Amino acid sequence: MNSRNIRLAVIPGDGIGTEVVAEGLKVLEAVGTKVETTTYDLGAKRYHETGETLPDVVLDELRGYDAILLGAVGDPSVPPGVLERDLLLRLRFELDHYVNLRPVKLFPGVETPLGGVRPEDIDMIVVREGTEGLYAGAGGVLRRGTPQEVATQESVNTAYGVERVVRYAFDKALSRPRRKLTLVHKTNVLTYAGDLWARTVDRVSLEYPDVETDYCHIDAASMFFVNQPQRFDVIVTDNLFGDIITDIGAAIAGGIGLAASGNVNPDRTAPSMFEPVHGSAPDIAGQGKADPTATILSVAMLLDHLGLAEDAARVEQAVADDLVERQTGWSGRTTQEIGDDITARVAG
Amino acid sequence: MNSRNIRLAVIPGDGIGTEVVAEGLKVLEAVGTKVETTTYDLGAKRYHETGETLPDVVLDELRGYDAILLGAVGDPSVPPGVLERDLLLRLRFELDHYVNLRPVKLFPGVETPLGGVRPEDIDMIVVREGTEGLYAGAGGVLRRGTPQEVATQESVNTAYGVERVVRYAFDKALSRPRRKLTLVHKTNVLTYAGDLWARTVDRVSLEYPDVETDYCHIDAASMFFVNQPQRFDVIVTDNLFGDIITDIGAAIAGGIGLAASGNVNPDRTAPSMFEPVHGSAPDIAGQGKADPTATILSVAMLLDHLGLAEDAARVEQAVADDLVERQTGWSGRTTQEIGDDITARVAG
Ligand SMILES: CC(C)[C@H](C(=O)O)[C@@H](O)C(=O)O
Ligand SMILES: CC(C)[C@H](C(=O)O)[C@@H](O)C(=O)O
Repeated sequence: MNSRNIRLAVIPGDGIGTEVVAEGLKVLEAVGTKVETTTYDLGAKRYHETGETLPDVVLDELRGYDAILLGAVGDPSVPPGVLERDLLLRLRFELDHYVNLRPVKLFPGVETPLGGVRPEDIDMIVVREGTEGLYAGAGGVLRRGTPQEVATQESVNTAYGVERVVRYAFDKALSRPRRKLTLVHKTNVLTYAGDLWARTVDRVSLEYPDVETDYCHIDAASMFFVNQPQRFDVIVTDNLFGDIITDIGAAIAGGIGLAASGNVNPDRTAPSMFEPVHGSAPDIAGQGKADPTATILSVAMLLDHLGLAEDAARVEQAVADDLVERQTGWSGRTTQEIGDDITARVAG
Repeated sequence: MNSRNIRLAVIPGDGIGTEVVAEGLKVLEAVGTKVETTTYDLGAKRYHETGETLPDVVLDELRGYDAILLGAVGDPSVPPGVLERDLLLRLRFELDHYVNLRPVKLFPGVETPLGGVRPEDIDMIVVREGTEGLYAGAGGVLRRGTPQEVATQESVNTAYGVERVVRYAFDKALSRPRRKLTLVHKTNVLTYAGDLWARTVDRVSLEYPDVETDYCHIDAASMFFVNQPQRFDVIVTDNLFGDIITDIGAAIAGGIGLAASGNVNPDRTAPSMFEPVHGSAPDIAGQGKADPTATILSVAMLLDHLGLAEDAARVEQAVADDLVERQTGWSGRTTQEIGDDITARVAG
């Protein structure tokens, strides 16, 4: 991998997406790895101009890259959900990103809303399933707009889909010092889906005697994120529960401006896609107010995924150093200034 | 209501349920209102002895009371979910508790895991739907235990069910100083159900011009509970999202030991049921370690529901005073001691 160019597709998207992606690319360049980028103008503008969200031919082209870097999609001018579903979620599903990897880590120097918590108290990885569950789009509506309306929404879970993400999570747990894996679900209410998840974890755990497994209901887990985050090491959970707890995770680890994620296809049958957890934030777009750190940390995950672990570590270290500095004296840099500072650390 | 006895059914349940309910009843007695209680031995013991969770004849009897006070159900000796579903959830569904009312309020003197937050920053009420959604029990499994297994879980939402809880929430918002109502859902992914919820809030809002309405995705709301709880006044949400955010709410407002709830049937076609949000906590059962405060605050909600607003306020004030005292010097009272102290305040 090191010997050839990385072919990267870039989807800056909407709002602050373009701003933060620019900084992510700057850092990537500073790493020194040869990267060949192609930018795709998917998002609100394209939708308004052509009505297209993700044309099939573009999707096919994207399949040819080593990885994808995405900023954020969504704009108030587009009907809610259209870009999320037809672009973002479609990419995750079509490219079989069955692992949505979201580290929740409190870097030294970063302020957390939790009092008395130290960086070592918040250091986990959420392995969120990315291609099933309530995100399948299954459901329907009967007698819409009448007093007799019924609207349903279906969570679809398969042994195939659950087992592969559970295996990934066990491997991940095995690679970490604590070797602990917690399944988060709601087995006492979602009995069919919960039973499949719980049985799968039980069965696969037999192959991982060195990993301690644990179970937590989503409601209790959400509470523990706030008052006992030390409890968790690696978490495996479904698509919707993962969506929710990783936002709590972002909150306790210093905010959405720092939360990175990877939509990973571990089988490498299609490129993985890296993106900040935050959205397009139209309210602050174009003002240089967005924090590019989440995107830069997503670039580190991208490098790691491509086998460039050392480069990834360098980027993460540069971010860590920048974050420590922010404590003392830093008042208010622009998106670009933060990007420049981290780039300088990576290059230096 | 004041002139006659309150007829109260009491279901202490399992684990710490019996301990905390005893204190709740002590406080209720101290209020001076005439209460006639009948205790029902539903829970793990009954299940083991007779195989029964909630016999139809008991359910019918329960319909005849003015209200129900429940401790907690669930025990490791019973297959997971059985008592939750066949007893607790069955009561909520059969008695049409379509409003699951959960105040999230930081009392002065109570420690919160959030740094720098003042009591006035956390003062909201979550109106959780209680009879629909993913709690309907709909779903199924195909080819269980094989690599081809498919497990589904369905969220069922009706215009009837959504509108009545939304109306209740608007009324609740109108009765509070801020008059703000936030719908929490995931409309960008759960398009059918989300559309029904969003349209219903929009339509009903026309009848409440004095209530400010707002929308928040469940993932963002979960984050805001941690880093911007001031954002919320009254929240209306579905059964599962309500389950999750009220546990985050409990965490930020000082822990599950203080979180009260009412399963309310506003049409009074059946008795409402009041219970602490916490579970049966078998690990600390019988040791006098449980905090009865959540149950005592649930008793206050019960009194309020029965039209005894002044008595309710007296109980809440006694709890508030006790909580302030805990700050200074209080080290470790037993369940009974806390109950005694609050009872003395109510009586005094
Ligand atoms: C935008 C939305 C569809 C998406 C999701 O729900 O997965 C987002 O919240 C996320 O977590 O990446
Ligand atoms: C015990 C469980 C079924 C219940 C729920 O999910 O509603 C509990 O978590 C609650 O919040 O009262």
